Amino acid sequence: MSKLRVAVLGARGRIGAEAVKAIEAAEDMELVAALGRGDKLETLAEAGAQVAVELTTPASVMGNLDFLIRHGIHGVVGTTGWTEDRLAQLTTWLAGSPRTGVLIAPNFSIGAVLTMRFAAQAARYFESVEVVELHHPNKVDAPSGTATRTAQLIAAARAEAGLGAQPDATATALDGARGADVDGVPVHAIRLRGLLAHQEVLLGGEGETLTIRHDSLHHSSFMPGILLGARRVTQTPGLTFGLEHFLDLG
Amino acid sequence: MSKLRVAVLGARGRIGAEAVKAIEAAEDMELVAALGRGDKLETLAEAGAQVAVELTTPASVMGNLDFLIRHGIHGVVGTTGWTEDRLAQLTTWLAGSPRTGVLIAPNFSIGAVLTMRFAAQAARYFESVEVVELHHPNKVDAPSGTATRTAQLIAAARAEAGLGAQPDATATALDGARGADVDGVPVHAIRLRGLLAHQEVLLGGEGETLTIRHDSLHHSSFMPGILLGARRVTQTPGLTFGLEHFLDLG
Amino acid sequence: MSKLRVAVLGARGRIGAEAVKAIEAAEDMELVAALGRGDKLETLAEAGAQVAVELTTPASVMGNLDFLIRHGIHGVVGTTGWTEDRLAQLTTWLAGSPRTGVLIAPNFSIGAVLTMRFAAQAARYFESVEVVELHHPNKVDAPSGTATRTAQLIAAARAEAGLGAQPDATATALDGARGADVDGVPVHAIRLRGLLAHQEVLLGGEGETLTIRHDSLHHSSFMPGILLGARRVTQTPGLTFGLEHFLDLG
Amino acid sequence: MSKLRVAVLGARGRIGAEAVKAIEAAEDMELVAALGRGDKLETLAEAGAQVAVELTTPASVMGNLDFLIRHGIHGVVGTTGWTEDRLAQLTTWLAGSPRTGVLIAPNFSIGAVLTMRFAAQAARYFESVEVVELHHPNKVDAPSGTATRTAQLIAAARAEAGLGAQPDATATALDGARGADVDGVPVHAIRLRGLLAHQEVLLGGEGETLTIRHDSLHHSSFMPGILLGARRVTQTPGLTFGLEHFLDLG
Repeated sequence: MSKLRVAVLGARGRIGAEAVKAIEAAEDMELVAALGRGDKLETLAEAGAQVAVELTTPASVMGNLDFLIRHGIHGVVGTTGWTEDRLAQLTTWLAGSPRTGVLIAPNFSIGAVLTMRFAAQAARYFESVEVVELHHPNKVDAPSGTATRTAQLIAAARAEAGLGAQPDATATALDGARGADVDGVPVHAIRLRGLLAHQEVLLGGEGETLTIRHDSLHHSSFMPGILLGARRVTQTPGLTFGLEHFLDLG
Repeated sequence: MSKLRVAVLGARGRIGAEAVKAIEAAEDMELVAALGRGDKLETLAEAGAQVAVELTTPASVMGNLDFLIRHGIHGVVGTTGWTEDRLAQLTTWLAGSPRTGVLIAPNFSIGAVLTMRFAAQAARYFESVEVVELHHPNKVDAPSGTATRTAQLIAAARAEAGLGAQPDATATALDGARGADVDGVPVHAIRLRGLLAHQEVLLGGEGETLTIRHDSLHHSSFMPGILLGARRVTQTPGLTFGLEHFLDLG
Repeated sequence: MSKLRVAVLGARGRIGAEAVKAIEAAEDMELVAALGRGDKLETLAEAGAQVAVELTTPASVMGNLDFLIRHGIHGVVGTTGWTEDRLAQLTTWLAGSPRTGVLIAPNFSIGAVLTMRFAAQAARYFESVEVVELHHPNKVDAPSGTATRTAQLIAAARAEAGLGAQPDATATALDGARGADVDGVPVHAIRLRGLLAHQEVLLGGEGETLTIRHDSLHHSSFMPGILLGARRVTQTPGLTFGLEHFLDLG
Repeated sequence: MSKLRVAVLGARGRIGAEAVKAIEAAEDMELVAALGRGDKLETLAEAGAQVAVELTTPASVMGNLDFLIRHGIHGVVGTTGWTEDRLAQLTTWLAGSPRTGVLIAPNFSIGAVLTMRFAAQAARYFESVEVVELHHPNKVDAPSGTATRTAQLIAAARAEAGLGAQPDATATALDGARGADVDGVPVHAIRLRGLLAHQEVLLGGEGETLTIRHDSLHHSSFMPGILLGARRVTQTPGLTFGLEHFLDLG
């Protein structure tokens, strides 16, 4: 079987460098180009890249994707900053190249994606649910984007299942004790030296609780998701938003 | 909306008595009969039961189901001891009453069912997976049936995904340190005063882990699953084995 | 060896009834009196009680202790509502009966007491520490009294060790995300159906974390502490505040 | 205040290199020598080292300590392989240099040391206790040395408190399910990709459990313990075995 020809854009960043190594180590892939700032995109076409992993910046990503789609190179995109306008533009470009696929994933950690998915699936079956995220103390925002997104997905699942407000008899509370309210789901943020990035979803019903916890101990945790994305995007024309669509969870 | 007319068989047992209370408390149900040992099954028909919750013994269950199916009463069955012969017999009976549904569930805890399902779904995406179950010290078997079943489902999912043996460099070990081997999945059983029934599935991949934990703190945890079963079985003719088939996990 | 003669005051309350059973079951104790509201205190003296377990109300406790101390009966007190005035009064009474001992314990759960103690001991060795308490959703206050007390003990230990403010780069946060601030220690309160009373202290330093967790699954968890208190108070004249003083933690 | 003059032996190993950086970063210390294999010990004396951190090999450690003690340089030793003979030899040498102190620590992680200590202290108050250790799958022994040592300390504490065998009604078990038996304490070893080194001690009594968990996420976790050792050894003549003796846990 011939190997999948993969390139990396943003290859000199921290995650990009990791991706270069992961692709080199994958038996079914060949790294054909590793571009950094200032390198020419034409290299990708000359190298015969089938998939490009895009790990640059919001300022560069649209230009890069324009090039990729025009050349029929599939994209696996970790760069952030997506707006409706940008997604609409991308969809238009993809319409002109109907065999090309682009995966945009806010999070390439399979564990994080599964946590969100399982939490949303379970949410309809439990009266109570709260989210706790735990990070190193250098993090500047609280709660994390992933925790906020998880709470929103949970809230949507509860609404769809017709669940009302969560039971909570709290009458007197210290400010902040009950966490932040994200669409009715309490979210708590812990900052602790020694931690990296962790999230726990606690669901409670009559006589039982279900806990789904994701621990991210190294940013290498993004690599299996990036490789999976590269393999699947070649068979998935058009725009896919979210790695969960490439997981077999039937 | 008229209420669902529900009966309980085995109503004087511990779980049965709980079920009686749960049905009485459910706004969409009416308890129409609560039978114990020696009570006449005819009562069910006279009371107009639409669903019977069967929580008796392996010695009684087949006779009870024969009666239920002949009278077109749907069954929600928590009694254990199912063999292939028994299931075949049941299928034959149900063929003769094509509108009647029977749900047999080895475990009515929604949390336990979701834990098994999520563990099996996630298993294909992680190199390593182990199961830890924790129970009160009066339990006579180790590991628990639920843990063994969970490990088997995980092993099947790994096999289907083409995963090989788990990484494990252990060269010298004390006997038992690495747990019991269930189809290649290590299972560890903890017995601790103060606990009831708990299970944790740990999945590990490059740089991250995913943990799914179920804590059963009271046998009332079976009630939401029994009620859900009673509601759904009326719309599900034939035999359904496992509560997971009644959960919306699409 | 002759058995310790123990009485219970407040024997018809939920905890009191549990205490009666626990004393009856203890091989080294004899239950000599079980008094409820309206019963005469003289019964205690007539029954030859050596120790009385006081589980009544703030309105009754001072009268009861006055009687106990005058009769040289040791007291193990779980009733709450202690003020400096009340403690001063008690000390005066005890000065007049120099062989009598009284233990007042805000919490008889040995696990809860050890959690607080270990948390305070460890606090001086870690840069970061946060407290998470988890309770059933019918609880009216947040955070729990135990969590607040734990955070205060941790804060005092940090101050004594010369530790400054905890590292926390949070620049933008949703209201409440970082929990309640108790003397500089973040405290988070989770309310979940299915839970009883749980507390977790998370400590983090360079490259490592230490977690101390207490799960209270039944109020029978107070009994070992009450029995231990009854045994030790007979050898500990004067006032002892807090079960931790009766634990051998040298 | 003048800075403590500290040297490192084994400075080119992984932990040694980390120690060099940690000492350089410590405000109250000055790194005066960093020796690797083949470097002359005389450098230590010439540099005026007050404390040497010894992180070499069992083959080198005795010669190094002989030199240190003869020159009145305090030692903080992480090298393993201690036997009674070696410790006796060391004691003899130290007798000839009564102001010199040597700390030998099998584990410099403060979190690991506190876990062992707290587990042993708590063990006497709980009927049940089990140890779970979790490591990366490249580890060759199971259970870990730390887990075995923890179980032994727990077993000793239980024996001292007069506790008998743990409650366990297990009648039928799969081989290995109940873990390894270390002096009557079950020890379970989990191997999972994505983990580094983790340990959990679970204690259970009537109605409650206490869990003490240590997560080691990076070997930098040894540094605070090494620095603390270097500060305290200068005021502690003679041989000290175990970092716990330098922690204030009164």
